[in-house]
Amino acid sequence: MSEKLSTNPYKGTRDFYPREMRLRNWFFGVIRDVLENSAFDEYNGPMLESLELYAAKSGEELACEQTYNFFDRGERHLAIRPEMTPTVARMVAGKMGELNFPLRWFSIPNMYRYERPQRGRLREFWQINVDIFGCDSYEADLECIISAINILRAYGADESMFTVHINNRRFFNDVISAIAGTDTEGSRKVSKVIDRKNKIPREAYEKELIELGLSEEQIAKIDSLYTMGVEEATAICPESQGSKELSQLFEMLKKTGLDRFCTFDFGIIRGLDYYTGTVFEVFDNAPENNRAMFGGGRYDNLVGLFVKNAKVSGVGYGMGDVTLENFLFTHKLVPEKFGNGIKVLVTRFDDVPYESYIALVEKLRDAGITASVYLGSKKFGKQIDFAVKEEYSHVITMGGDELSRGVVRLKDLTTREESELTVDAAIAALKA
Amino acid sequence: MSEKLSTNPYKGTRDFYPREMRLRNWFFGVIRDVLENSAFDEYNGPMLESLELYAAKSGEELACEQTYNFFDRGERHLAIRPEMTPTVARMVAGKMGELNFPLRWFSIPNMYRYERPQRGRLREFWQINVDIFGCDSYEADLECIISAINILRAYGADESMFTVHINNRRFFNDVISAIAGTDTEGSRKVSKVIDRKNKIPREAYEKELIELGLSEEQIAKIDSLYTMGVEEATAICPESQGSKELSQLFEMLKKTGLDRFCTFDFGIIRGLDYYTGTVFEVFDNAPENNRAMFGGGRYDNLVGLFVKNAKVSGVGYGMGDVTLENFLFTHKLVPEKFGNGIKVLVTRFDDVPYESYIALVEKLRDAGITASVYLGSKKFGKQIDFAVKEEYSHVITMGGDELSRGVVRLKDLTTREESELTVDAAIAALKA
Repeated sequence: MSEKLSTNPYKGTRDFYPREMRLRNWFFGVIRDVLENSAFDEYNGPMLESLELYAAKSGEELACEQTYNFFDRGERHLAIRPEMTPTVARMVAGKMGELNFPLRWFSIPNMYRYERPQRGRLREFWQINVDIFGCDSYEADLECIISAINILRAYGADESMFTVHINNRRFFNDVISAIAGTDTEGSRKVSKVIDRKNKIPREAYEKELIELGLSEEQIAKIDSLYTMGVEEATAICPESQGSKELSQLFEMLKKTGLDRFCTFDFGIIRGLDYYTGTVFEVFDNAPENNRAMFGGGRYDNLVGLFVKNAKVSGVGYGMGDVTLENFLFTHKLVPEKFGNGIKVLVTRFDDVPYESYIALVEKLRDAGITASVYLGSKKFGKQIDFAVKEEYSHVITMGGDELSRGVVRLKDLTTREESELTVDAAIAALKA
Repeated sequence: MSEKLSTNPYKGTRDFYPREMRLRNWFFGVIRDVLENSAFDEYNGPMLESLELYAAKSGEELACEQTYNFFDRGERHLAIRPEMTPTVARMVAGKMGELNFPLRWFSIPNMYRYERPQRGRLREFWQINVDIFGCDSYEADLECIISAINILRAYGADESMFTVHINNRRFFNDVISAIAGTDTEGSRKVSKVIDRKNKIPREAYEKELIELGLSEEQIAKIDSLYTMGVEEATAICPESQGSKELSQLFEMLKKTGLDRFCTFDFGIIRGLDYYTGTVFEVFDNAPENNRAMFGGGRYDNLVGLFVKNAKVSGVGYGMGDVTLENFLFTHKLVPEKFGNGIKVLVTRFDDVPYESYIALVEKLRDAGITASVYLGSKKFGKQIDFAVKEEYSHVITMGGDELSRGVVRLKDLTTREESELTVDAAIAALKA
């Protein structure tokens, strides 16, 4: 092959060199720590699933359009997972009898969506998924919201940087009925128009609502919902179940002091067919990152596609790595160094037997200190250059003279301080 | 859709429920700790790559046969990665000028191979990849072997459980020439037969060698290599570069005491076209796991497919999660519990405002204790059952009476000891 291959990764995917990988391990590590600390259990499933799992949820056309899908040699139609919900639904359905509900589960899978790459959206991404299955009451909704807030706070973010926007799908339906005076079917049609509010011109929006029988006053009343606080909004239909759920959740947010992170937002709908109660999205307050970082809510009948007459409700959210990374950089929440920063290069001289260097480096490692011997035969100055470029914090040198006297020279590459001491004393100094 | 969907994962793939996931996080965590402690840097690349990357290395037919591959809508022929080497070669080639050699890199990617699932082999698997790029000398080979040994030792494995089988491809060629008296081309033909020794009947093996001009004595001499120690084997062609490399490596293994984990094995070849120096495989000593757990060696010209006239040699190995997991279970190296085992369920009573439970559980979490409030409204006994099944170590109960007195009741679910104390005292007790 005379033509050389391209070194670019496939469109919409990323290479993670060590520098980027350290960042990822840190930021997924923070998420794992927070969620495990809150007694959530991690799970994972396969990258390939039967396409019918996505088709059953989103329709065959959308499933085919949004996924990388293909047939295997057994004519099974497979898709690379574009989301985790169908997989987790399959897993819960598969062990319904054994599992101990309510489940508190999370996952950080990699996945693919077939779409045009743009800011905040790539074809390959990682998505944090957090769900509680088998608890119908608002406490589970609250627990999900708390975990989302705790993740962001663990990065050092505060209420000036992000806001949790909350609505309730039951309230949404009820308040539309109350304002428009429509029956269930009529409200559903009105809801569909409202769901597209930001995607169609204002004139078209009004025209469609008027065609469904709404007056200008009713349209104006619906408009006013977008700027209302939760008390005012729920007062429109105080007896509705949705109003009660919304009030209860906001009351508890207030009592726990979490209301400073949260706001009622009638604009949060999140797809008409899926969610059934609380819905929420977490927004970056920085205007350049205008995409929701987290989105989720309550849904019913998770396992219905798999198990007849079974019902497991859930509440949860997903969060993409790309928007989260944008958030962390925008708000300068990424530390300059990860870990304790101690990393030791043992330099080499030709007059010392190599096994002495191996013994030294293994002793450092056994003491929990990150260390390696310089590999190769470059001059001392080049070895130091290597250490500086690779962000080693210290260098240990041991020539024939030091070896015979049972000492090493330890140099701090930041302060440039250098001292001669025994290996044990060097280890103690590095650990201090 | 009246037909219910299957809850089985796709053939050859696995679901990781929380129990299995804890195991994976533990065992990948051990690997990460050992490699980071040895100053290896983690990287990752995309799950999808251009098929030509694999075709260029293994030929189009094999690449198509062994991978899940398909065309995207831009007619790009893509494959789900079946191995990491082409990706890492592409990444190194892409930043040749910026990277600070020698590189010490590792990765733990998920990948897919299209093959019949069997013990130790699945279609979806994770593979640990460890490589050192840009160091030609034996110290890098040694460093790779040390890291493999250190990973297994970190699990508690000792020399009775595994063995590193080592050979050298240069020695292999030289010793064949020395015994058979063949030129380079002749030796290549003989090597091809020897590479298939275990795959063809003995008669066919001998017949093919005789046809290449070998005598029965020469064939017997080659046979004897399989039971020779390294000194005896290298003595056949003491002046060969391969003999010198092999002797040097084994001498250093002896001096560092690592020879107890290692053995010379003329049967280790690992494909004729790829490796150029040291080759090694790590075997589980348990006869039921007869597949190599780790395999690797030295190869040249990693980036040649991407960059003209550039040469970067490497040495490294890969290790699959499936064989490693079999090893850990066979030798009973999997701990019963992971982490510190402290996990607290705060039970609920109706006479306590929910915000008091939230405040309590958040205080425990802030103190670094894994904790959650029971979600739902089941009776106390059911809440305890839930805690036991979910392997909570402790339960904290706080009824209206305790709340008014500023105390909680802490119960150890293992010892069944129970005591009444302040929240701060409970935290101190849990952390002790």
